[in-house]
Amino acid sequence: MKKTREFSKPPVVLSYATIAGPKEGEGPLASYFDKVINNLYYYEDTWEKAEQKMLLEVAELALKKASVNKEEVDFFLAGDLLNQIISANFVARNLGIPFLGLYSACATFYEGLVLGAMLIAGGFAKKVLVGVSSHYATSERQYRNPTEQGVQKTPTAQWTVTGAVAVLLGEGEGKIKIPRITVGKAVDYGLADPSDMGGAMVPAAFDTLLSHFKETGLDYDYYDLLATGDLASFGHQLLVRLLKEQGISFGSKLTDCGIMIYHPEQQVNAGGSGAACSALVTAGYVFNQLSQGKITKFLGLGTGALLSQVTTQQGMTIPAIAHAVSFESY
Amino acid sequence: MKKTREFSKPPVVLSYATIAGPKEGEGPLASYFDKVINNLYYYEDTWEKAEQKMLLEVAELALKKASVNKEEVDFFLAGDLLNQIISANFVARNLGIPFLGLYSACATFYEGLVLGAMLIAGGFAKKVLVGVSSHYATSERQYRNPTEQGVQKTPTAQWTVTGAVAVLLGEGEGKIKIPRITVGKAVDYGLADPSDMGGAMVPAAFDTLLSHFKETGLDYDYYDLLATGDLASFGHQLLVRLLKEQGISFGSKLTDCGIMIYHPEQQVNAGGSGAACSALVTAGYVFNQLSQGKITKFLGLGTGALLSQVTTQQGMTIPAIAHAVSFESY
Repeated sequence: MKKTREFSKPPVVLSYATIAGPKEGEGPLASYFDKVINNLYYYEDTWEKAEQKMLLEVAELALKKASVNKEEVDFFLAGDLLNQIISANFVARNLGIPFLGLYSACATFYEGLVLGAMLIAGGFAKKVLVGVSSHYATSERQYRNPTEQGVQKTPTAQWTVTGAVAVLLGEGEGKIKIPRITVGKAVDYGLADPSDMGGAMVPAAFDTLLSHFKETGLDYDYYDLLATGDLASFGHQLLVRLLKEQGISFGSKLTDCGIMIYHPEQQVNAGGSGAACSALVTAGYVFNQLSQGKITKFLGLGTGALLSQVTTQQGMTIPAIAHAVSFESY
Repeated sequence: MKKTREFSKPPVVLSYATIAGPKEGEGPLASYFDKVINNLYYYEDTWEKAEQKMLLEVAELALKKASVNKEEVDFFLAGDLLNQIISANFVARNLGIPFLGLYSACATFYEGLVLGAMLIAGGFAKKVLVGVSSHYATSERQYRNPTEQGVQKTPTAQWTVTGAVAVLLGEGEGKIKIPRITVGKAVDYGLADPSDMGGAMVPAAFDTLLSHFKETGLDYDYYDLLATGDLASFGHQLLVRLLKEQGISFGSKLTDCGIMIYHPEQQVNAGGSGAACSALVTAGYVFNQLSQGKITKFLGLGTGALLSQVTTQQGMTIPAIAHAVSFESY
C-alpha cells in the first residue's frame, strides 16, 4: 500500500511560532526563533509547567500572527514526549479547540502535519493548529536519570531540545504549501541501546525516504534541501552510507535537524533530539528560507524512537518511525 | 467551530475482533468477545508483553475475518494507556502498516475511529485499522501502586479493563455505518482526585453529547442506545443529573460501558475503565446488537482523563475529553 498522498489542492502554512530554550538560543539558528527563554523554569515552579507555558504561548502567537481566533480553528493536533502527553493535554484544555492527541516520539510534529494536511485536503477542516514541545529537563528525568545525579552521557547520546512550536495549517493561498506527505511504518532492525536512538531511527528514515521518491516518481535532485529530524551525527552518517549502498547520494542537500540546531562546541554529544528539534528547525530556519525564496522545495522527515523505559528494562529492541512532509514555495 | 462532521458517504465497519481478560470473561458481556484469556500473563513473561500479544492478535484476527492482507491496509491508528504507547508501537512494528500513534487516554479507541472515518471519507484511505488495548496489571503498576502492595481502593476508583480490540474501517458497503462523528475538546472543571476519574470526565462527556445533538439537529430520542466510555456508576449518575438540569433525559437508553462490562458483585468499585473498556463494549456487545438488528442507531462517547502521575504530584487538576461516533445499521 502506498504511504504517500499527493494533494491536488495543497494545504498551506498560514502562520507559525517558535520558542527555544537557553541552549538552543546559543546555537546557530537562534536568530530564526520568535523567542528564546533564558531559564529552563521560565518563571514557573516546575519544568513541566514551563514546557506547557511554552506550548501555550506558541499556540496563541501562531493564531495572533494569522489574526485567527481560537473559535475559528477546527482541530488542535498536538503531542509531546512526556508520559500521557501532558503538555499537549493541558494546553488543549486552555485553548478549548477540538483536540486530537498524538504520540510519535520525536516525529510527533511531522505526524501532526501529515494528519492536519489530510484533514484539510479532505475537506474536514479549514484550519488546523499543530503543536509540539519538548524540554531538556522534563525529558531527562523521565527517560534517563535524576537530573541532580549529573550522569555522564555516551558519545552517541543526544541532547533533548527545549522548545515549542505551533503551525497553523489552512486552505487556500499561502506562500508555503504542502503538496505531498508520506506516512511511515514502524521499523525495527534490532538495535536496543537507548543511548543511541539516532542509530535506531536510521532504518525508518531510510524506508520513508526511499518510499517517498519511489511512490512520487520524483528525481532524487528534486528537493533543494532534505532534513531528517534527529538522527544526529552518527545516525546521519549511517543513513548517508545506507543510501550510498543503494547508489543514492543527496550530497550536502541532505542534513539533519539534530546536527543543525547546535554548534559542535556546545557539548551535546551526537546532537539534538526531541519533538521540538525537527519542529524548531523546520518552522524556524526552513520556513524562513522558503519565505525568503532561498530555497523553494524542502522535504522534512520527522524521526521518532518508539521505546519506553519499560521496554528497555524488559530487554526489548527499539522500533522507530519517520513521517515525511514536503514544503514548497513557488 | 463545529465539532461534528457528517459523511455523505459514510465509512463502514468491515470487520472487528475482541479479546478480553479473565475478569471481563466473568462479566455479563463475556459471550460477545471472540476470545477470553484466563491469565493476565497470557503465556508471556511480562504483563506488558501480554498486552502487546493481545493487541497483535486482534489486529490479525480483524484482518483475517475481512480476508484483507496487511498490505491492503492504508493506515494503522492505535494507542494505549502505557507510557509512550508501547503496546501500539510494538504491534505497529509487527504489522508493518503505515502507523499513526494516538493518545487520548481511555478515549483512544474513539479518537482512532473519528480520525479513521475522516481519512476514509476524505479519500485518503480505503481501509484503516483502528486498534487499542489496556491491561489491569500494566496500568495498575504504572498509574497507581506496585501490584504486590495490594493497596485498598476508594469506592469511586475504577477497575482497568484487560482487553484488546481492532476494527477495520473501509469504504463502500457494510452492515454497520458511521454517518457522523464529534471531536471533543479538553474540559477541566477543577476536579483533582485521580481516584475519581469518572467524575472528572463527566463535563467533557456532557459537552460532547450536547454539541453532537445541537450541531446535528437530531432529536434526543433519535438513538436507540447511547453509551459513555467509562464514567462508571458515580460519573454516570452525575451526567444524568447534569442533563436533567438542562431538561434532557435519555432514560434507560443512556448507559456507560464501565457499568455494562462487569457484574456489580465483581468488586470493581465504581466500574470499569481503560482504553479497552469502551472498545470491548462497542465492538463486542454493540456491534452484535447492530448486526442482529436489535438496535439500529447507537451513539458511543469515548471518555478519557488526560492526567499523569506527574500532573497529580504537581497538584494539577484533571482535564478530560470525549469523542463521539455514531454507528448505524439500516
